[in-house]
Amino acid sequence: MIMQSKILLVVLDGLTDRGNKTPLSSAKHPNLDKLAREGINGQFFSIARGVKPGSDTAHLSILGYDPKKYYEGRGVYEDLGAGISLEPGDVCFRANAATVDDKWNIIDRRAGRDDYRLGELFDAINLMKVNEVFDTTGGKVLDDVEIIARHTTEHRGVVVLRGKGLSKKITDTDPHTITEVLKSHSLDSSTEAARTASIVNYLTKRIYEIFSKSPVNRDRISKGKKPANILLLRGAGMYEETITFKQKYGLSAACIAGGALYKGVARDVGITVVEVPGADATVHTNLTGKAMAAMAALKTHDFVFVHIKGADACGHDGDFNAKKRFIERFDREFFAKVKSADALMVVISDHSTPVSLKDHSADPTVILIHGAPVRPDSVKKFDEFSAMQGGLGIVTGKELMPMILDLINRSKMYGE
Amino acid sequence: MIMQSKILLVVLDGLTDRGNKTPLSSAKHPNLDKLAREGINGQFFSIARGVKPGSDTAHLSILGYDPKKYYEGRGVYEDLGAGISLEPGDVCFRANAATVDDKWNIIDRRAGRDDYRLGELFDAINLMKVNEVFDTTGGKVLDDVEIIARHTTEHRGVVVLRGKGLSKKITDTDPHTITEVLKSHSLDSSTEAARTASIVNYLTKRIYEIFSKSPVNRDRISKGKKPANILLLRGAGMYEETITFKQKYGLSAACIAGGALYKGVARDVGITVVEVPGADATVHTNLTGKAMAAMAALKTHDFVFVHIKGADACGHDGDFNAKKRFIERFDREFFAKVKSADALMVVISDHSTPVSLKDHSADPTVILIHGAPVRPDSVKKFDEFSAMQGGLGIVTGKELMPMILDLINRSKMYGE
Repeated sequence: MIMQSKILLVVLDGLTDRGNKTPLSSAKHPNLDKLAREGINGQFFSIARGVKPGSDTAHLSILGYDPKKYYEGRGVYEDLGAGISLEPGDVCFRANAATVDDKWNIIDRRAGRDDYRLGELFDAINLMKVNEVFDTTGGKVLDDVEIIARHTTEHRGVVVLRGKGLSKKITDTDPHTITEVLKSHSLDSSTEAARTASIVNYLTKRIYEIFSKSPVNRDRISKGKKPANILLLRGAGMYEETITFKQKYGLSAACIAGGALYKGVARDVGITVVEVPGADATVHTNLTGKAMAAMAALKTHDFVFVHIKGADACGHDGDFNAKKRFIERFDREFFAKVKSADALMVVISDHSTPVSLKDHSADPTVILIHGAPVRPDSVKKFDEFSAMQGGLGIVTGKELMPMILDLINRSKMYGE
Repeated sequence: MIMQSKILLVVLDGLTDRGNKTPLSSAKHPNLDKLAREGINGQFFSIARGVKPGSDTAHLSILGYDPKKYYEGRGVYEDLGAGISLEPGDVCFRANAATVDDKWNIIDRRAGRDDYRLGELFDAINLMKVNEVFDTTGGKVLDDVEIIARHTTEHRGVVVLRGKGLSKKITDTDPHTITEVLKSHSLDSSTEAARTASIVNYLTKRIYEIFSKSPVNRDRISKGKKPANILLLRGAGMYEETITFKQKYGLSAACIAGGALYKGVARDVGITVVEVPGADATVHTNLTGKAMAAMAALKTHDFVFVHIKGADACGHDGDFNAKKRFIERFDREFFAKVKSADALMVVISDHSTPVSLKDHSADPTVILIHGAPVRPDSVKKFDEFSAMQGGLGIVTGKELMPMILDLINRSKMYGE
């Protein structure tokens, strides 16, 4: 029977590379090669040729949400990914614990990258909402803004401002490099943006005071760790309700991911997040656990989205061999187990992360679709060079969902 | 190191052709084949599939300037290419010296195609700006419009109207065929267009009077040449200031071209024009000089745009063998010398000019990108048929600059 009613979408983050020899083309991945041989292949742009995608915009586009219309700012997806229940109008940030000197020059943007007692520090900010009023404009009491903070992994956490009259049109306090903590300023002429920037600057000052005096930091220093005496805020976004994946496509959907951002994008569109112990978005992630969770989720959902981050991390580190090894590992530990799934399997990457660049690039990625309804092409291997010969040609993110909905006989006719 | 910081963009005008055997596929071009073998290839539409591009719109699109938004009319690029310093609001024409009888029936649209003493005739028009007032509307003196004229090559020159209240929405006096000189008329209902058309008609009458009486034409006739007794005006355009290439991309840029139009498009977007002796946009152009100038310009600029016109001219002449020979010559005299440039090399054509058609066509052209960051494909030769197998697939003009900016690590991330 040439039918398939379920979809397994696997995003291999930052998989593809540049030059005449890539980690993917050098690695051994017999399971992916078998899927490529039996399936149909091509090159893939999550947004468009020439566009270097961020992780957030890429994933919105892959799920069929045009980022020009739906992108809310990275903070929203980070905060949803951290499990915070957002309300429309909330202004969301990603927050990195950092170490600064008394002039706010940055000593370590990640405060040593450990997570020792950082939860307690983030919780101290939450207490502000009951203990403090803000005075940011020379007298006016801003007591109607609630602060929500939560530690996530390593040095990372999230901060939310909740209240009326806020704006996401403000700059980061995180300089994204080792200089000094920046003042947030507004990006438009609205009073909301000016007010939000001044709240962020006041909040940063109070966080520095609270963290500096905290016994947690005395303990960290006594243990030879760096003090986490400030939070660097970035990626301001404002949460809005979005049409859900189920409303849009009629499919029940589950997401299996380690990284908060990907869980956040999923939650933003109403996709259920399945937590997998040990799935931590690093090269040490629990791939077997993810495979088992995917197979189980396919029993209860129409659409299962699995995100695997490790190759992207190796690309950012510029480590060719680590990237190659991680590819071999997910072939063995993940694809060997899901290749028999009774589902249309779609394997893509959201963007290239070349080891020579240590950053995302706009180079095309790859796409492979495997399942009974597809017409197999002549491609024998799963890599950047073989994909150039694929029968799919070049596919873009906005084409992906319509194409795979049609392959499981869920598309609507245009005309009669 | 898989890095490249400079771009050499070579446009082989009108290169590609129709049918099962083309000048490009018949010619020997070992240097271009080597670049194709080592690089990545594809098919290219400077504007879009099915659009037959003009030379001006094609080049705007290639440089990332949407012609729908930025096209100012061919006269502007011709006049800038002729080295005239334009001011916003100038109305610009291409002007061909022609031979007419006393009823303005055209005897020769190019007045014999020689340039003998034409410079003096064009200069006589320039003198009008101080010696004449125009009376075009039955009494009203139009003394606030300045006329600027300049001879360029062979029978060609340019004319500019400078003043307030002008419009480009008028028709050509050049019939583009051998009939009679046309009256210019307005293309919309504005008073500016009506006024400009009447100025053009009056100017044409005065040019005929001045040229007819000129001792230059007595001398031309005595030398057995045709009198150049009128100018045919075409391509009305209005100059406006455009965002520069440097502002748009942050790249310092140089242009090496023989044809006035290509230099004009470059100047319109603030690209520096490097003059090369003997680069005359014909099949006799100084290709070695252009190669040396390109290599030198790459030392001082981020982006070097080289335009090679000859193949297009052979296409317009319908001369298969001349086109083939010119292709072999630029492979030997140009590409042999630039193939070692330390730059990302991008070779395209702006449009096809099939010898069977003697005109531009909308058939796809070719694109080749060579440099360390690209993923080589399986293409072995540089021609229309090999390009169909290329790893780039089909690329359009608007995608070109974003794609090559990304390959030299100059793209900005969309999202985070």
